[in-house]
Amino acid sequence: MKHKVVGIVGGMGPAATVEFFARLVRATPAMRDEDHLRILIDDDPGIPSRTEALLRGGPSPAPRLCAIARGLERAGAEILAMPCNTAHAFLEPMRAAVEIPVLDMLAETAARVEVDRVGLLATEAAVRAGLYSKAFVPRGIAVVAPSPEDQAEVTRLIAAVKAGEPAGALRPRLRRVVAGLKAQGARAAIIGCTEISLLHDPESPLPAIDALDCLVDATVRAALGEER
Amino acid sequence: MKHKVVGIVGGMGPAATVEFFARLVRATPAMRDEDHLRILIDDDPGIPSRTEALLRGGPSPAPRLCAIARGLERAGAEILAMPCNTAHAFLEPMRAAVEIPVLDMLAETAARVEVDRVGLLATEAAVRAGLYSKAFVPRGIAVVAPSPEDQAEVTRLIAAVKAGEPAGALRPRLRRVVAGLKAQGARAAIIGCTEISLLHDPESPLPAIDALDCLVDATVRAALGEER
Repeated sequence: MKHKVVGIVGGMGPAATVEFFARLVRATPAMRDEDHLRILIDDDPGIPSRTEALLRGGPSPAPRLCAIARGLERAGAEILAMPCNTAHAFLEPMRAAVEIPVLDMLAETAARVEVDRVGLLATEAAVRAGLYSKAFVPRGIAVVAPSPEDQAEVTRLIAAVKAGEPAGALRPRLRRVVAGLKAQGARAAIIGCTEISLLHDPESPLPAIDALDCLVDATVRAALGEER
Repeated sequence: MKHKVVGIVGGMGPAATVEFFARLVRATPAMRDEDHLRILIDDDPGIPSRTEALLRGGPSPAPRLCAIARGLERAGAEILAMPCNTAHAFLEPMRAAVEIPVLDMLAETAARVEVDRVGLLATEAAVRAGLYSKAFVPRGIAVVAPSPEDQAEVTRLIAAVKAGEPAGALRPRLRRVVAGLKAQGARAAIIGCTEISLLHDPESPLPAIDALDCLVDATVRAALGEER
């Protein structure tokens, strides 16, 4: 059986790319090495900041994302996955840059939501760019963002994860933000930032839907040639 | 500061490649994404079995290893690391195939050993090919291999890790093998197989020197341009 070669556009940040790769390997049905997928990874931490580009007019990461996508295609990738929610603001130019499919983490996540109102844990840039609203609202799913104070706390938590702070001390702070989303009527929390995925909190006040897991699932299915 | 781009020849097996990547990211001194290394990974689980080639005359993995090394070089890698001990039997043809340096996990491990007699936890193929003896004996380090029964147990443990069995049940079995090495006079255990690295046992009867960690250390130093 011939599986499709997976290309991962990574480095945003590196720990999130490690986590995606780890979950992808674990999620692949395999007893021996040769049952596994071939995976090409470009873990490039030098991609210009998505947040700076979206919020403060910094240089666009699109040219570098397109170059990485083309490099992976040239190296043999047959499908691409990008484990960074905020970078999906640049999905369209990437799709135009290559011949192979680029999976859409946000659409894959929206397709797995079964409630009508979700709370969003994401970067301020992803929230303000309306990335999740665009994916969710046409499916009849309302998206609730944290209060400005709580969003600032999410931003601090993401920076703390990127700096390698241990999850234990960060989880209670995340829980307070999730409680605020619940108070706004959210019936599930969307883990819409790969750094928040790294905190995987078993005691969250709301059921969590992790966009990273949704992308893992979509990637394995696409590589094995299965329909959802 | 310009870091060297790291290429990882992976897939032997995929979980060991994940572990190496994870340790490499954790070992890199970094506060923000852009402090990290650029890492290109070819995780190719279809590389012909190193054990079959070395023990039973199966097809050589060398052509595919050389092709992967050349592909990573073409994609921009400036140094290569291969987190698989047994595959180091094919290091010389790989080095001849590319212009960039290929790190030698076994030499890096030998350089970090401070005792005169070590016990070896490795595949039967690596033991029989004398890979570790070649790296260790010229440095005055004697290498002790497990008894045939214990080596068969190591082989079963490696297969169990590749099949995804949980580490908890496997560690006591590994401990019995290490106790046998200790009884033979070994003063440290060389974790000379990346699947055994995944079991990281805190209660080992001997101090452990993990070849995977030695390769992580050598890779970070080489990428940052530091001498050992």
